[in-house]
Amino acid sequence: MTAAPLFLLRAELKKRGLDGFIVPRADEHQGEYVPASAARLAYLTGFTGSAGAAVVLADHAAVFVDGRYTLQVAAEVDPKLFAYLHLVEQPPHRWLAETLPAGARFGYDPWLHTPDQVEQLKQACAQAGATLVAVESNPLDAVWENRPATPLTPMVPHPDSFAGQSAAEKRALIAKELVARKSDAAFLSAPDSIGWLLNIRGNDVEFTPLPLSFALIHKDGSVDLFADGRKVPAETRAHLGADVRLHEPAALEAALKNFDGRKVRLDPASAPSWALDRLVEGGAVIDRAADPCLLPRACKNEVELNGTRAAHLRDGVALTKFLAWLSAEAPKGTVTELSATDKLEECRRGGNLYQGPSFATIAGAGPNGAIVHYRSSPATNRPLEPGQIFLIDSGGQYLDGTTDVTRTVAVGEAGAEEKQRFTLVLKGHIALARARFPAGTSGSQLDSLARKPLWDHGLDYDHGTGHGVGSYLSVHEGPQRIAKNNNSQALLPGMMLSDEPGYYKTGAYGIRIENLIVVQDMDTKSERPVRGFEVLTLAPIDLNLVDRDLLTEDEAEWLNDYHARVREKLSPLVDPTTAAWLVEATRAI
Amino acid sequence: MTAAPLFLLRAELKKRGLDGFIVPRADEHQGEYVPASAARLAYLTGFTGSAGAAVVLADHAAVFVDGRYTLQVAAEVDPKLFAYLHLVEQPPHRWLAETLPAGARFGYDPWLHTPDQVEQLKQACAQAGATLVAVESNPLDAVWENRPATPLTPMVPHPDSFAGQSAAEKRALIAKELVARKSDAAFLSAPDSIGWLLNIRGNDVEFTPLPLSFALIHKDGSVDLFADGRKVPAETRAHLGADVRLHEPAALEAALKNFDGRKVRLDPASAPSWALDRLVEGGAVIDRAADPCLLPRACKNEVELNGTRAAHLRDGVALTKFLAWLSAEAPKGTVTELSATDKLEECRRGGNLYQGPSFATIAGAGPNGAIVHYRSSPATNRPLEPGQIFLIDSGGQYLDGTTDVTRTVAVGEAGAEEKQRFTLVLKGHIALARARFPAGTSGSQLDSLARKPLWDHGLDYDHGTGHGVGSYLSVHEGPQRIAKNNNSQALLPGMMLSDEPGYYKTGAYGIRIENLIVVQDMDTKSERPVRGFEVLTLAPIDLNLVDRDLLTEDEAEWLNDYHARVREKLSPLVDPTTAAWLVEATRAI
Repeated sequence: MTAAPLFLLRAELKKRGLDGFIVPRADEHQGEYVPASAARLAYLTGFTGSAGAAVVLADHAAVFVDGRYTLQVAAEVDPKLFAYLHLVEQPPHRWLAETLPAGARFGYDPWLHTPDQVEQLKQACAQAGATLVAVESNPLDAVWENRPATPLTPMVPHPDSFAGQSAAEKRALIAKELVARKSDAAFLSAPDSIGWLLNIRGNDVEFTPLPLSFALIHKDGSVDLFADGRKVPAETRAHLGADVRLHEPAALEAALKNFDGRKVRLDPASAPSWALDRLVEGGAVIDRAADPCLLPRACKNEVELNGTRAAHLRDGVALTKFLAWLSAEAPKGTVTELSATDKLEECRRGGNLYQGPSFATIAGAGPNGAIVHYRSSPATNRPLEPGQIFLIDSGGQYLDGTTDVTRTVAVGEAGAEEKQRFTLVLKGHIALARARFPAGTSGSQLDSLARKPLWDHGLDYDHGTGHGVGSYLSVHEGPQRIAKNNNSQALLPGMMLSDEPGYYKTGAYGIRIENLIVVQDMDTKSERPVRGFEVLTLAPIDLNLVDRDLLTEDEAEWLNDYHARVREKLSPLVDPTTAAWLVEATRAI
Repeated sequence: MTAAPLFLLRAELKKRGLDGFIVPRADEHQGEYVPASAARLAYLTGFTGSAGAAVVLADHAAVFVDGRYTLQVAAEVDPKLFAYLHLVEQPPHRWLAETLPAGARFGYDPWLHTPDQVEQLKQACAQAGATLVAVESNPLDAVWENRPATPLTPMVPHPDSFAGQSAAEKRALIAKELVARKSDAAFLSAPDSIGWLLNIRGNDVEFTPLPLSFALIHKDGSVDLFADGRKVPAETRAHLGADVRLHEPAALEAALKNFDGRKVRLDPASAPSWALDRLVEGGAVIDRAADPCLLPRACKNEVELNGTRAAHLRDGVALTKFLAWLSAEAPKGTVTELSATDKLEECRRGGNLYQGPSFATIAGAGPNGAIVHYRSSPATNRPLEPGQIFLIDSGGQYLDGTTDVTRTVAVGEAGAEEKQRFTLVLKGHIALARARFPAGTSGSQLDSLARKPLWDHGLDYDHGTGHGVGSYLSVHEGPQRIAKNNNSQALLPGMMLSDEPGYYKTGAYGIRIENLIVVQDMDTKSERPVRGFEVLTLAPIDLNLVDRDLLTEDEAEWLNDYHARVREKLSPLVDPTTAAWLVEATRAI
């Protein structure tokens, strides 16, 4: 990485009378992926991780990343230019409160921060006796030479046969909630919400069919959609219909200023602060509340669930073909992380309705498996060696569903320690899959069930246990989540999540077992209505890594039942060689 | 309850040009107990529970209580005067946002609400188009005839031999933290913090030796203490020393306004909003952060822990004598909830350093046991009948420690359902007591371990699993807590908590098994430093209610080990009859 962007930014800040500036990873939509035109943090610092921020002051600069990226930041960012700080333990706002000189003018781009984040920055500046300044235009953009163009991929209709509900019905549903809360409109900035609401998909960022845009939904159910007209072909305009008015993005400012005295709902955790500022300027009363599409989007309807089940069947066929191939080829020593990744993609590519990977495959052999967010490259690519274990985490985007699955397999014979750790992870995986819990229980409350077998041995893993998953949308979606971090969202029927405990031994190996699961009502007649999970993913779990003596009878029964189901569903759909392998791979233990 | 207070308040509000007013249960110190002089909610509505609020508007009024008090509110509050609303599901601020007419002036007493609460009220009023008004004096107090006098009980020194650390050392510790955060002072309004910091105790409220007062601690370690001079005898003044300056409460306002340009720490979750307002008026920079005494107070030192262990030994002797007596007397049909309560108090009263109960004993026979916060009275008093189960939750304040223990016992032979439910509760109790978890784990993360055996059968309980406990201070103290509700405070060595899962069948019986436990480092050399619990409480768990077949070997071993320890510790300290009973009550199963 060159030092030029940092020097250019400092010069620009000086010109504008600013003593510092914050550059977050996020773009205006606060999503996990940003288009190249919004990869400001990577341009400034070289850091390409999926979360983080940089703060530039006149004399020093720092880059903030979380525990997943400790190794990566050191490989990508010059420590002479940026100090490395921990995003969670010492977030920018706390560091600023201690570091900013009194009287400083500190800038931020209101398009790239949520109102909640701006509030934190404001308090930090107040604590330091500094002033927080919203810039009119981004000073980094001003000096960014050869900045990539904003993407202009077309928005396409997502058929009702996949969505299970028409856009008109969805608009009516949200409008009803606005009326109930006495709101006149809601501002939407999350492209997956807009995609869900209007049954459209796009292709503006990698891996996720997001239609980057903004919208206002009104209490009459009509929508103002703000997107570059070149992104909306005639077919999509027809699909949107007359109740969805299309505007150029430049029209958003006037639209937001047009709510004098009326109430507009805005999500302070995801909207750009810029939108709040314009609404306030125009005299709107703000209803700070979650994006109204979040919950209906998260609770999949039966059509979506059936689509997802069908997608998982196809995905299971692909993954099982791959695992059978791997089991034959890997012991020969000819497979590498990258060739395995290519092979898996080749297996998926044949699948009906397949659109591409739902994220960059994580394929880690031996020690590379211990790097939680590893992405293999020609420089790091390792062969799969006998005696090692190999972790592969991948997923597919199908028009009828989004998949995400991790399997960890032994190449040849596995060591006793690896088997013990794998079995502990499996016990946690099973505990979550089998969990029964009363209505109202949140994902946070279930997280420790998956960790307990590891905790009992003084072990743990440094990531969440389960993330929400979309329906041909983001592979990571909220509001549900199973993690140590507080999350009070109750798990509701139809919510899809991952179940993915793991164990990582730095420099040695990594283990993760991931299935997707969906919340279901299990017993509505017991004293407390009971919920639990249906398992969606269909692929064998490597029995070569299971120490049967560490499983209880109940756990072994779960595993055998799961494998019987995998065998029964997939056998008719795979070639004879794979089918023969599958019988052995799913044998009862 | 008469309607007079409501009518008088409405007249007073009208006189002051207010369209409504909120009356919380809390006093200026936001504690669990309030002196009679601050029992405004009870005076206004009749409701005497430990949490809640009332909102009075011109045309309607509502009382807000949580699930614990659904029955009690109906017995105490006239539904023609106040609608009953759910404090958690429809809190006052949400109800106000929907109910207040636009243009209304809605009042609150800034002494009785925290800044966080005022922020919620402010947003609710904004949403309704109403104005929130801080009253200069409380309008309910203005019409409250025969209001009890403010308590003036003396503050007494709490000897270093119990506290384990001198007040001077504690003041230096907090001062060091203020310097580290560049704060000039911290405002303290929690009387347990002030009692901890200055090693003093008081007697202003029931059950808890709180010295009601306010304080400012400065970065030089000196303290301004605001308390009525009549409450501070000469011995206490000498104990406080020259670095603690005593002022009358009326001097607080000027003191808070005296920080122009300097930084003052204030806890927005517990301080009265009034104090924040005065600090802001005086030009102070506010450091919104938790009460700095919270964490050091919660992490008991070795002297406090040894005191607590000694107190639990004495408390165990008393409870075991009581349980032996009960086992002999109850089957005769002559024991009632109230006579049992008296007998237990009589058993405790003999104990060294005993000061009184740490809360009002909950003694529930049969169906009364299902009322979670039941308090027996002559009107509700029930005899303990053969075939029933009896729940008794009680605790003692000893100069060297605070206890809290619940035992549920069978009177005669218990039914199969009761035994099954009791054993499920016991399994959860044991799971928590035996839990091993990595450093950094919070109580919320452990809560489901205690519920899982019930969840597996479609059962649950509607209260937290564990609350923090003080050292000759509040029997309920933070910041640690084991509950469904989010609590991100890591469990740190020395933190005391209760372990009290339960099961309640309305109209039939209640079950709860409660021990106090303390967080300890269990293994600092494993891959992740491991923490766990030491059990403090010493008293038999009724084996007549245990279905051995439902326990795993590990669980039975825990129970047998626990009972062996109870027997070994208590046998030498009890009379021969009790000792003989104890041998049987703690037999291995």
